[in-house]
Amino acid sequence: MQRIETVEEMQVLSESIRMAGHTVGLVPTMGFFHEGHLELMRVARRYSDTIVVSLFVNPTQFGEGEDLTAYPRDLDGDLAKARDVGVDCVFVPSAEDMYPEGYQTEVRVRHLTRHLCGLSRPGHFDGVTTVVAKLFHMVKPHLAVFGQKDYQQLAVISRMVRDLNMDIEIIGVPTVREPDGLAMSSRNSYLSVEERESALSLSRSLTLARDMMTQGERNAATLREAVEKEIQSRPFTRIDYVRLCDPNTLEELETIENEALLALAVQVGKARLIDNCILRSETS
Amino acid sequence: MQRIETVEEMQVLSESIRMAGHTVGLVPTMGFFHEGHLELMRVARRYSDTIVVSLFVNPTQFGEGEDLTAYPRDLDGDLAKARDVGVDCVFVPSAEDMYPEGYQTEVRVRHLTRHLCGLSRPGHFDGVTTVVAKLFHMVKPHLAVFGQKDYQQLAVISRMVRDLNMDIEIIGVPTVREPDGLAMSSRNSYLSVEERESALSLSRSLTLARDMMTQGERNAATLREAVEKEIQSRPFTRIDYVRLCDPNTLEELETIENEALLALAVQVGKARLIDNCILRSETS
Repeated sequence: MQRIETVEEMQVLSESIRMAGHTVGLVPTMGFFHEGHLELMRVARRYSDTIVVSLFVNPTQFGEGEDLTAYPRDLDGDLAKARDVGVDCVFVPSAEDMYPEGYQTEVRVRHLTRHLCGLSRPGHFDGVTTVVAKLFHMVKPHLAVFGQKDYQQLAVISRMVRDLNMDIEIIGVPTVREPDGLAMSSRNSYLSVEERESALSLSRSLTLARDMMTQGERNAATLREAVEKEIQSRPFTRIDYVRLCDPNTLEELETIENEALLALAVQVGKARLIDNCILRSETS
Repeated sequence: MQRIETVEEMQVLSESIRMAGHTVGLVPTMGFFHEGHLELMRVARRYSDTIVVSLFVNPTQFGEGEDLTAYPRDLDGDLAKARDVGVDCVFVPSAEDMYPEGYQTEVRVRHLTRHLCGLSRPGHFDGVTTVVAKLFHMVKPHLAVFGQKDYQQLAVISRMVRDLNMDIEIIGVPTVREPDGLAMSSRNSYLSVEERESALSLSRSLTLARDMMTQGERNAATLREAVEKEIQSRPFTRIDYVRLCDPNTLEELETIENEALLALAVQVGKARLIDNCILRSETS
């Protein structure tokens, strides 16, 4: 497994892989790998000859007062895990290389970023789309793999790729969960034992909403209130948002006709956790 | 010479050229070719195996009340001229293909766009950087060629390319002028005989400033006033701006230490004309 630290080396390597007729699959990450990340790498492996995993804790997608400095890091552990999964190249650019002096360009997706986490974390998605656009130009992948746990991020990046005509296939991978349902996240490491117990209310509330749908409930407010009640019944939780929205536009729904994205963000102790599922009105 | 009208065909063609080991040079244009455009194509020819000229009058870089609908067009003439210069491929995308329904992404260079034309034409450069980023992803060039007549555009695009790590070389080509000094521009076609005579004051004022520099003048206000007086002495002219600024940051200068960009924008009849030169304090 190669480890690359400069943009130029990365571009030269990628160009040579492409010119040799091989495909490049990119998994952009902020490191501190868990099973969710490894699953993204396995999926990339399935669809491409060469896998590049980028590892960069991107400062521009953290807001003031967010957990940039506390964000967990474990480069040695990450390298070992990536090697075990068969990653070909780990790309670890420096912040100085990413954002040199004089840097002043941003990529912005306008409408999709006005909802959900875009409201709670102003500027977050501008940071995400900009760094992902940069990584795409650095790694020149044929395809890139993202987790569906960050549903809005996947939607925003897919939109950017389509709108800017980037010739890259975007693949979304279903959320990987702990055996008890907790969605895997690097931020789970912030949780105490008691907080982790409370954090289970996120996935439980998704199951609850799915059950209510099966029983015929179609009113978004009713579903939302049930989800909120489930989460609020646990200690250490503070809801940021619970939303039922159109899975394509992310606009809020009042009634669920066909399908809806149920998305939630909840502060549990020091961890801001997100989770989501698609609710479908078909009982099949 | 190939003529391509869809994004997908363009990407397939460019990818195949690249995979064959040949280089692609792009000249992005809004058509209505004059000698200035043809010079860009000749330069592209010098540095690349295959030349693609894109031809798209981009609506998003025109402001309200600007000359989008009046902008001169002559596709047949353009195709003939491009063929004569040895262009390999003319890419003529449609506005629907460029900006399909739901389109919502923009690329923005923040600081360089706050000066000169960025002030007079709000949103103009966001339209430029976004469409150029799209064209780069569509045509996948190794290099792209722009005219120095649009100095700020060249600076903004170079900044975008560097900031977003696009693996593309940007080449700036000196302004091509009519024998009497008028900078070539598609918008010169708006000028009456009398207006064209007045328009000569732009290039004359650049020469005047250069002469004053040679004679030792270093005060930006003095130089600016002389330039303004020269232009205002002609009928049909209305100055938008005359600025002396740092050639790298475009920030306004009070005194010229080493070099300065002298940039001007002047409405002459229906035509908004721009011109510029670099003033150097060396007398060599």
